[in-house]
Amino acid sequence: MNGRTVAVVGGATTKFGVRATTWSELAQEIGAALFRAVPDLRARDVDSLFVGAAMPERLAFQSHVAPLAAEQMGIRPTRVIQRTELACASGQSAIRSAYAAIASGLSDIAVAVGVEKMNLPSMAEANTAMACVMDRAWDGPAGATAPPFFAMVAQRHMLEHRTTEEQMAAVSEKNHRFANSNPNAQFYEKTFPRDKLLRLPVVAPPLRLGDCSSMTDGAAAVVLASEDVVRQFPGPKAWIRGTGQYSDFHNLAHAGSLTEWPGLKRAASEALEMARIGVRDLDFAELHDCFSISEIVEYEALGLCAPGEGGRFVEDGRSDLGGDIVVNPRGGLLGCGHPLGATGIAQAVEVFEQFAGTVPSARQVPNPEWALVHNLSGSANVHSVMVYRRGRAA
Amino acid sequence: MNGRTVAVVGGATTKFGVRATTWSELAQEIGAALFRAVPDLRARDVDSLFVGAAMPERLAFQSHVAPLAAEQMGIRPTRVIQRTELACASGQSAIRSAYAAIASGLSDIAVAVGVEKMNLPSMAEANTAMACVMDRAWDGPAGATAPPFFAMVAQRHMLEHRTTEEQMAAVSEKNHRFANSNPNAQFYEKTFPRDKLLRLPVVAPPLRLGDCSSMTDGAAAVVLASEDVVRQFPGPKAWIRGTGQYSDFHNLAHAGSLTEWPGLKRAASEALEMARIGVRDLDFAELHDCFSISEIVEYEALGLCAPGEGGRFVEDGRSDLGGDIVVNPRGGLLGCGHPLGATGIAQAVEVFEQFAGTVPSARQVPNPEWALVHNLSGSANVHSVMVYRRGRAA
Repeated sequence: MNGRTVAVVGGATTKFGVRATTWSELAQEIGAALFRAVPDLRARDVDSLFVGAAMPERLAFQSHVAPLAAEQMGIRPTRVIQRTELACASGQSAIRSAYAAIASGLSDIAVAVGVEKMNLPSMAEANTAMACVMDRAWDGPAGATAPPFFAMVAQRHMLEHRTTEEQMAAVSEKNHRFANSNPNAQFYEKTFPRDKLLRLPVVAPPLRLGDCSSMTDGAAAVVLASEDVVRQFPGPKAWIRGTGQYSDFHNLAHAGSLTEWPGLKRAASEALEMARIGVRDLDFAELHDCFSISEIVEYEALGLCAPGEGGRFVEDGRSDLGGDIVVNPRGGLLGCGHPLGATGIAQAVEVFEQFAGTVPSARQVPNPEWALVHNLSGSANVHSVMVYRRGRAA
Repeated sequence: MNGRTVAVVGGATTKFGVRATTWSELAQEIGAALFRAVPDLRARDVDSLFVGAAMPERLAFQSHVAPLAAEQMGIRPTRVIQRTELACASGQSAIRSAYAAIASGLSDIAVAVGVEKMNLPSMAEANTAMACVMDRAWDGPAGATAPPFFAMVAQRHMLEHRTTEEQMAAVSEKNHRFANSNPNAQFYEKTFPRDKLLRLPVVAPPLRLGDCSSMTDGAAAVVLASEDVVRQFPGPKAWIRGTGQYSDFHNLAHAGSLTEWPGLKRAASEALEMARIGVRDLDFAELHDCFSISEIVEYEALGLCAPGEGGRFVEDGRSDLGGDIVVNPRGGLLGCGHPLGATGIAQAVEVFEQFAGTVPSARQVPNPEWALVHNLSGSANVHSVMVYRRGRAA
């Protein structure tokens, strides 16, 4: 590392769900929420804005969304303004860009915001838009979108490791239970016991409705500050101690094993090495559970359990409160919904609030010091990881 | 500045124009061209990829374009991969992101590539897509797209400063003349004398066809390296010495004067101050001539001439070879075409090749040391500036 140290000093999310708002109204709403949540933040001190948004051109007929978001949030960036796009990991991509800008000296105080409006009057159009995440020329004609791809991962995992539908339901039950203590989650106050999950309609076999994250509208934002100006924010902080990313393939013909994600192994190793800790030092993790099977594969790729034992890991409660590591206390993508560009940023908000001790006790990790956030994108071909440490000073 | 120094060590462009290729074929083509142009570059040494693309979701029905481009180019990023979007300035946004990643220590050798495929079977669809750059809720219903907006700038400049259609034609004539020494330009081997330009059809009064940059397919890429690894590239270099960006407004109701671009003044001042030079030290500049009137306003905002005197500045040859400063020796957006995300990167390729002395003599700036690149986006509401210096060592 050559640059300055960077901390998340606060954040906020809007209510996630089917929202009767436009893209720019969501940007305005998260701006107001952010300034309420971080009272030490003055608009004129924000020199840079990074907007994570996966496909507003298709979903909101709006490009050039970064200056639109700036205006709606009441921010006038004087150093860096841009949107970052990395499909379902667009949010964490915005945070990494903010991190690099601050570490390099280009920015002192930056906001990373994620906004996505996915529910349209015509959901057929929204679903069609989602198809453009895969390689259109080669994988598109074969019908490859996210649910059938992750269904193949699940089928293969069941074949190779005897993973069961009940174990996948255990992921979903856990994350929905956590979401019940998160009023901004899409599925707040909805209960999903395992027997109910196992009776829901099949989306792509073996994945049922409760195994799939949803089409969600929502926004989230965090404030990042350099070590040089962090004294402006006397409250708790989540210091960025490590980050890693790896891009493996795009065309599905080039994918290797469906059930081992070497890109996640590499990205996480790099982030943990940079932070100088091991995976056992983590107190909790926000993992990208776009589908229940994803979280199971991620336990294994991160080395939280042996290859093939992810199903048993969740079934035995080892990723729950009181287990080896708490995974997705926010409620995950399954419980909170998955507004693509907002997800990675909402995960960082959860890290900050867990460190600050401000989340409801039903999901509070006891005295957490280290957290890892993982976003994947596309057909799990790109993996992005951040490692955060709680602290007040640099 | 806290981070490491960064140099552009090579680059390439594809042929710009109406191309019978897909988006991903353009990515493949620029990958091949880049490795031919930079023989010291090994694919395995490229740790990061930044993709500038304005709206592939609409124009190519493809999102998640960064890993697609990586695969097509034969690059497997292990550090950072992302697309950056800032409408017409998406290319320079990718370069700034690469700069920040390298300066911060996240990356050592990065590629910034811009790809845009704008000519579709239905040009009505392409033109409709372009409309999503403006604020759709407020400016869209009023019919605001780029040509009518810049036509208002031209009308106002003519009213305030007696700028003439002949002076705007002088910009277009100069840039098309330079493009005639650039085989990759869309309008290579096409001559546009002023009397011909003044007879072309009107697009939005007073702007005629020759005053407007075109819908163009094309790609461009540069390689950026940190001072720590730059010895791998023994050839000429364009060192990034300054950069600035400013975001002013989005909704047109919040725009100030149409003929003064304070965002450009601020972004350029910041970049020049960081480089510790004045505007008179520049040998040439690549300015964002999306319309002929833009270049005239830019002369004034940069302080190359007094406010209101931009028309006379070009008419008197002061922005031509042998003048005060050479503006757009590459051929500009008017002569080369404007494949949105590729433009800012093609401008950087021109800087590198001018410094290397490898461009045809008809457009070679004599012994250049300093260059400025300017990209604007939207309704000239966001301005992005880079300052480069020629050199071999850091």
